[in-house]
Amino acid sequence: MPSIDESLAIIKRGVEELLPEDALMEKLKLDRPLRIKAGFDPTAPDLHLGHTVLINKLRQFQDLGHEVIFLIGDFTGMIGDPTGKSATRPPLTEEQVRQNAITYKEQVFRILDPEKTTVVFNSEWMSKMTAADMIRLAGQYTVARMLERDDFTKRYRAEQPIAIHEFLYPLVQGYDSVALEADVELGGTDQKFNLLMGRVLQKHYGQTPQVILTMPILEGLDGVQKMSKSLGNYIGVSDAPGEMYTKILSVPDDLLWRYFELLSFRPMAEVDEYRAAVAKGANPQDYKKILAEEIITRFHTEEAAASAHKSAGNQVALGAIPENVPEIPVALAGRTEVHLVSLLKEAGLAANGRAAKDVFVRGAVYIDGKQQVDERTFVAGDDVVIQAGKKKIARILITE
Amino acid sequence: MPSIDESLAIIKRGVEELLPEDALMEKLKLDRPLRIKAGFDPTAPDLHLGHTVLINKLRQFQDLGHEVIFLIGDFTGMIGDPTGKSATRPPLTEEQVRQNAITYKEQVFRILDPEKTTVVFNSEWMSKMTAADMIRLAGQYTVARMLERDDFTKRYRAEQPIAIHEFLYPLVQGYDSVALEADVELGGTDQKFNLLMGRVLQKHYGQTPQVILTMPILEGLDGVQKMSKSLGNYIGVSDAPGEMYTKILSVPDDLLWRYFELLSFRPMAEVDEYRAAVAKGANPQDYKKILAEEIITRFHTEEAAASAHKSAGNQVALGAIPENVPEIPVALAGRTEVHLVSLLKEAGLAANGRAAKDVFVRGAVYIDGKQQVDERTFVAGDDVVIQAGKKKIARILITE
Repeated sequence: MPSIDESLAIIKRGVEELLPEDALMEKLKLDRPLRIKAGFDPTAPDLHLGHTVLINKLRQFQDLGHEVIFLIGDFTGMIGDPTGKSATRPPLTEEQVRQNAITYKEQVFRILDPEKTTVVFNSEWMSKMTAADMIRLAGQYTVARMLERDDFTKRYRAEQPIAIHEFLYPLVQGYDSVALEADVELGGTDQKFNLLMGRVLQKHYGQTPQVILTMPILEGLDGVQKMSKSLGNYIGVSDAPGEMYTKILSVPDDLLWRYFELLSFRPMAEVDEYRAAVAKGANPQDYKKILAEEIITRFHTEEAAASAHKSAGNQVALGAIPENVPEIPVALAGRTEVHLVSLLKEAGLAANGRAAKDVFVRGAVYIDGKQQVDERTFVAGDDVVIQAGKKKIARILITE
Repeated sequence: MPSIDESLAIIKRGVEELLPEDALMEKLKLDRPLRIKAGFDPTAPDLHLGHTVLINKLRQFQDLGHEVIFLIGDFTGMIGDPTGKSATRPPLTEEQVRQNAITYKEQVFRILDPEKTTVVFNSEWMSKMTAADMIRLAGQYTVARMLERDDFTKRYRAEQPIAIHEFLYPLVQGYDSVALEADVELGGTDQKFNLLMGRVLQKHYGQTPQVILTMPILEGLDGVQKMSKSLGNYIGVSDAPGEMYTKILSVPDDLLWRYFELLSFRPMAEVDEYRAAVAKGANPQDYKKILAEEIITRFHTEEAAASAHKSAGNQVALGAIPENVPEIPVALAGRTEVHLVSLLKEAGLAANGRAAKDVFVRGAVYIDGKQQVDERTFVAGDDVVIQAGKKKIARILITE
């Protein structure tokens, strides 16, 4: 086990704020695994590397021997938007929450150690809470202090409506820390206020307040705006190996070290050496390849990482079969057959089930160079070259 | 039954605000008893005439054939002050609420018709409400509009803390109107905001919004400040007949007509005649006596009203027995005996059980001219002159 100072150095890597640092020192001395909480939205997860900055930090805590509590905030998700003004935020059903949790696990267990991760849903305790309990909880904080939260201040000044239930959600999040007896809570910088609420409420309930740790927002491939799906400047954790490779090689040179700090698990000493080498004239592209390899290995396989450069950035005319098509084995794993749309997803030729269906419906799926317009199934032993759109092509080997 | 116009004239007597008046007209045309809601604090009731202004209005609705829903807000009372800052507002127990409700009924049924009164407790529906329901309810209103409530605006500007649960209580009160499907809600002028909340929420829940009616605050005997126990300018509904008489005769002349309008059930035409007579030189004291008689009859008996002037304002030296001591019969009503302290209360020689105990403990109770320092009991047939303090003395006849 590393010393407390070594632990602290690892924990502080890339962190935006850590409050209070001396309280964390005290907790690290406790000689028991700390309870590290992070809360996630229960809506359909479709993670990109920006989201993984926080998850990587959780993994570092796990590597130091601590326990991660992966909290899915389904209670509020199942309430939806009671103002009825946002048609885009309908309440989630229990079934949707369960499905989304499965997708979450598939994605985050590429990073987290399942053995040291407890997935919890806050509906577990919040759905037992009565209106009277909620009122008592709301008595623990004042309107003026709640209005100090950045976004509330702005909206209040701009005379944009804030519905009163929005004042209750930070209290719910804070109470989650009480229910979980969290030692540390992680969040994005925009979560600082809510994380501090956990401290207020834990103190009120007689617990030692949690330490709060915020991680910065990762810039996207443009190097300016935050990474986001809607801005198109993202690297998705389900992107195909070639796509990941191309994107990581397009990262602006001066952003590379930040990506290493926040996305790589290589020791900082090593990253500093790379940086020094580039300062002395080495080609930054070589280090982007090192980062790409680490990340593709994490989300795919070592083999995919090794061959990703081959399919990177290729645009293939629909129906054409280039040389060096990557080979991807897909296991039936107990099934007798697999449908085309499922296969596209499982082989990483589409980001998710929906994208797979889309590419098929728009007639951009070619099998062995011929357009495939009808659904079909594949059985063990099948060996076909499947193209899904102009950028994704692979030789698929169906195995038992 | 009076016409709609006649009903409206009676309903509008002494009212501060009635909103919207045309909606009330529509409701009066419905040809069914309207549901008239008024909410009361669950803390120990000790009513004075200022409180009865509202209750008188409820009685007028009953006389017009409508149903009064006397709501005791026990749900919030049982929560107490969750901020823990006010030691003087501990949560009430269910037993206290039940006891207070009994005292309420004793007092208000001197005015209200029990046949047309439904006493309800909002814990009935609120204690079934979950935290999720409360959050949905809180989604129906905005922070900015809640801060527009007079007292919130003032406190926010003065940087005095407002705990967030205080924003939930008006929503609870408004939801009570939904649960009760209230047609009309009455309150003091300070309640206007909360009464309007009922309209907002009823509309949201698909009900026809209630009409709101506010009654003014009654000035106390000083003619300037609002009637209040702490200011000492009040007439308690449990005051002894002589005390009521003295106090009503001390009402400032120019306040008398307001007292008639708000406290008397005599038709306004009659009140206007009295007023005209005084304007022409009649003695206002004669009309104060008329008001005193009506009010003493309401809270005691016709006989007490007739003889109240005899004991009014008398100060009797402790132990002295004056002429013309009023006779008060007290019935055992099934009991075999009655204790002194209870008797003091039942005979109206003390305002309530606590005052009875106080006067006894401080040695100011005299029986047949002799100081009584020990507790004692009375049985049927007992006939004693009891003095409790310098102003209260009566001949008590204990009957079966």
